This record gives sequence, C-alpha cells and structure tokens, in this order.
Amino acid sequence: MKNVNIAILGLGTVGGGTYEILSKMNRGLIENRTGIQFTLTKVLERDLSRLEALGIDPACAVTDPDLITEADDVDIVIESLGGIDFPSAVMEKALLNGKSVVTPNKAAVAANFDKLTKAAKSSGAQFRFEASVGGGIPALTAIQEALSGNKFTEVMGIVNGTTNYILTKMGEEGWSYEDALKDAQARGFAEADPTADVEGIDAANKLSILMALCFGEYIHPDDITREGITGVTMADIEEAKAKGGKIKLIAGAKKRGAILSYSVKPTFIPNEHPLAGVSNEFNAIYVTGNAVGELMFYGKGAGALPTGSAVVGDIIAIAKTL
Amino acid sequence: MKNVNIAILGLGTVGGGTYEILSKMNRGLIENRTGIQFTLTKVLERDLSRLEALGIDPACAVTDPDLITEADDVDIVIESLGGIDFPSAVMEKALLNGKSVVTPNKAAVAANFDKLTKAAKSSGAQFRFEASVGGGIPALTAIQEALSGNKFTEVMGIVNGTTNYILTKMGEEGWSYEDALKDAQARGFAEADPTADVEGIDAANKLSILMALCFGEYIHPDDITREGITGVTMADIEEAKAKGGKIKLIAGAKKRGAILSYSVKPTFIPNEHPLAGVSNEFNAIYVTGNAVGELMFYGKGAGALPTGSAVVGDIIAIAKTL
Repeated sequence: MKNVNIAILGLGTVGGGTYEILSKMNRGLIENRTGIQFTLTKVLERDLSRLEALGIDPACAVTDPDLITEADDVDIVIESLGGIDFPSAVMEKALLNGKSVVTPNKAAVAANFDKLTKAAKSSGAQFRFEASVGGGIPALTAIQEALSGNKFTEVMGIVNGTTNYILTKMGEEGWSYEDALKDAQARGFAEADPTADVEGIDAANKLSILMALCFGEYIHPDDITREGITGVTMADIEEAKAKGGKIKLIAGAKKRGAILSYSVKPTFIPNEHPLAGVSNEFNAIYVTGNAVGELMFYGKGAGALPTGSAVVGDIIAIAKTL
Repeated sequence: MKNVNIAILGLGTVGGGTYEILSKMNRGLIENRTGIQFTLTKVLERDLSRLEALGIDPACAVTDPDLITEADDVDIVIESLGGIDFPSAVMEKALLNGKSVVTPNKAAVAANFDKLTKAAKSSGAQFRFEASVGGGIPALTAIQEALSGNKFTEVMGIVNGTTNYILTKMGEEGWSYEDALKDAQARGFAEADPTADVEGIDAANKLSILMALCFGEYIHPDDITREGITGVTMADIEEAKAKGGKIKLIAGAKKRGAILSYSVKPTFIPNEHPLAGVSNEFNAIYVTGNAVGELMFYGKGAGALPTGSAVVGDIIAIAKTL
C-alpha cells in the first residue's frame, strides 16, 4: 500500500473532523478504495488535550510551522487554523516548497487567491480548497473538473448557514431577527460575534472564490458590494411571501458578454426556484453553464464531519497523483 | 498544446452534442483551460448527413468498429450508439486494447458493469460514464472522487425525466396519465414506445450504476424490484397531496449493516424533502454519507448539450492523464 504523509495545522473543528474521518471513522474503507495509507506525521497545535482527545501521538506536535513546511516527511499540508495572514503565509511557504495544500479557510483563500494559486503553479504543488465554499458540498471540484466543458454564465449561492437559518426561522416561525440569532448561537450555527455572517462578509469571501473558478476572474472580497441580513424586516419577509417567494441571502454573479456583475444581498427568490427550498442551516450552489444548463448542489455547509468530508476528498485527490 | 485524438461511435443526440461542445461551442475555452486540443479522427456513423450537419470531414467515417478499437490514432472512444450488446462488445474491445472509453449508455453500463470495469482494469485504460445517470449532473464523479472519504448509507434518485414530467403534470395541472404522456412525447421527453421509462426499466439501469459506485455492489438491473408509474392514479396523487407530499418515481437503495435493500417504485415524498421540489423533466440524486450527511445534486437529466457536458467532462478528465 502506498503511504502518504500529512500534517495538520490546527486541530479545531475542521482539523479534528478531518483526522477523525481519515484516520478513524473511515480509515479502512479509504484504504480499500484507494490503496493509500495516510500517516499523520506533524501537527501544529499548542493545545495538547486536542491531540489526546483524538488519540494522536504528542510527539507529532510542533509549534514552529517551518518544521512542517520544510519537513521531508510531509507530503500534504492541511491548513485549518483560521485567520488570514498567518495561515496564508504558511500555505504559501508550503506550496513554494512543493508541498500540496488543502484548506477550508475561505477568508484566507479569498484574500490571497492569486498569491496562493501562483505559488502552487511555480512549484507544481496542488492547492485545493473544496471545503471553503459550501462545506461538504462538492461544488468547486465539479465546477473545475466535471463541468470544465462549460462556459459559466451565472452562479448563485446560499453559502452562509447562519443567515439562512435566521431567515428561515423568521419566515417559517415568525421569530424576530434577535430571537432567531440567539437560537442560532445556542445551536452553534452562529458565533458569539456574528458580524462576519450577518453582514455578508463570509458570503463575499465565498463568492470571490466561486467567481475565480467559474469565470477565471479574481475579485477581492472587499471589492464585492455587500448587504447583510440585519436590515431585513418582518415586513420584507411578509411581502415576499405574498408575492409567492422567500428572501434569501444570495451571493451571486452573472457574466453577460465581457461584463461580470456581482453582489451579496438579500434577494427575492420565487417558490418555484430550487434555491427557495434550501432551508435552515443548509447551503446550496446554483450554477448555469452554456452546455449543462441549470445545476444545483445542496448539502451541509458547515460542521466538523461535512467540512472534513470535503477536506478528505481533496487529500485523496492529491494523494492519488503523488 | 497537447493533442488528444477522439473517436465517436454514433452521431445521434448525445454524440452530436458532445462534438458540438468540444469542437465548436466551447472549443477555445476548453483549449485555454486545459492546454489540450481534441482532434476527431474517426466516426462510426452510416448517416453521412449527420457528419455534414456538424461540419465533420466525411473521410472520418468508418463502418467497421475495429477500425476504431484497433486504430493508432484514437486515444479516447466515445460510445453513443445506444443498445446493449453491440456497444458493450465494442467498448470492451476498445478497453482491452488500452483505449479509454466514455459513454452515456446506462443500459450497456448497467448490463455489463463488471465486464467493462474489468476490461479497463486489465489494460489500465479508463472507463467513465458520468452521463449515464442524471445526464449533465456530475453526481457519479462526485461520489467516486470528492466524496470518496464517505461510507454511503443511502442513495435516492429521481433519475428519469419522462416519468417525473408526467407525475408533475398529473399533480400540478390535474392532467390524466394519458394526456401527460402524450404531452411528454410531443415535447420530445418521452419516446414513441415509452415502456423503458414508464415501467421503471431506465431507472433500474441507473440505480444499478449508483449502487455499484456508492456501495461497491453490482446488482444486475433485472434483479432490481421495480414498479413503474402506469399504476399511479389521480387518487394516489390526491392522497399524497392531502398528506403534505408528492408521489415521485424513486430509484433508491439503503445499506444497513451488511444488508443492501433497493427498489424502483412510486414513493411518497414529503414536501419538506429536497426531492419534492424536483419538478418536470429535472432529475436529482440524493445521497447520504456518514461524514458529509445529506447531499443533493439537481439538474437536467437529458438532452444533447446537458448530457454532452457530462461526456465532455469525462473526456477532459481522461485527456489530462494521458
């Protein structure tokens, strides 16, 4: 059996979920399917209790990222630290050193898309980030591979579970924005500081990535016009209902001729549209290609195992080529 | 630019759509994205007017499939003839000769899954059939690649557009089965002899393929219990509506422990389920993995360009590895 060595930066939700799937839950199944055995050789993690909880040898722990980006016994680096500048610098270093990188970190990918893809190209390493948009939903791989015979004309996503949960509860249960947000926080769908979600910052990061892949145009997330859901009133929701639809936070882009237009904003979606049925914390990515027509990918946009599933898919795809 | 030679067997709907996308509509875009130029060197097609309509050099036409399966100037064979025995024999020969094969032919893939995958393995050629289930929807590639870190527990598909169109029109417009079928035939969604669709034979072929990929178990389509839609009455549909749902023709399989259970049959789907929103001729594949949870892929299950999109995706995937 082929052995591939991996290193994980950060054993939080996604890093832990990835290890859980790859090395415990589905280890035998993955070995049987792929003929590849994955060995965790290094972990960048200060909290040793996280290693213990996952049964990882504490000798794997390092605190200096150079011990991973320059290590001989690391083939694939999984970056699941969060943040932007530090993880981007570590990923760039790893890629320049010829190590392939997998990350769910939308903020870092969106902020440094050009720099990171260029670093990968220069060394021939692979840079994959399926989990960065839509969590477990394999839309990015589909856009880049199975759908690569298409010219894309439009992409629309419900790519933030927190805001979709809040809008669903306001629309279906008549809850106030404040009550829905509190409930989302209690269920772990929303952070204590929900700004990045409710102001559309997270959705803009994901739209930046979707546009780069669909249209080959990189737009920095700060340059995307965005409006969050804090201004959505019960009156707006009732009006949408009366018109036969729903208000959804849509991260959308359209290409007409050479003109790419894009925004993140609360949008009326008629009930007949497939995106109208995407409720609660679920995500969906809806793309239109000139050959395939309309397609939608639906699933869980967050959580340790769904997001870990996408990271593991990327790890396996890279490992097959090593 | 790398050159890859292709041959197409049959220039009907899908064969023609594939050529249209690859060599005309999106030729420049595909060359830019992949750095690969595709050259059609051979066509198995007796109707020369089809070559003329697509602007293909009549010198490419052959009538003996051995001139393709044994040709030095063919890297990838696209089988879009339809039927079972003849195309299966040609595909097996091509694969044994080391030529990769792409096909949308669900009946042939489902009937000869073991034989064809074995032929591919023996020579190291690739055998891809994304278009065989769900037309343009890239579910098979996702199941085999991006989701390969999952143990699948369930797969449910609305995989036949004709029957979904008929059931939608019966439910939403109150049309009789006969009127809906006639309308589907007039629109080109249903064949003059609709048996394979309305009796669930086509759906059983697709379920056989889905089970082989999700669960690693090949069940011949003849061994799948199936019930078509000819017995669905308006009373059944009204009863489903009263219970808050719809009747859909579901090709479904579940794995519980070592037990795989499967069937094609009209099934009650509650309105809250994502499959309930799949209307008219659209298809969807709904899978559950132990890491990713519930996922749904939605799109056009038939037609020259949507199905051609999936064939072209497979061709590009193979060409990248040549």
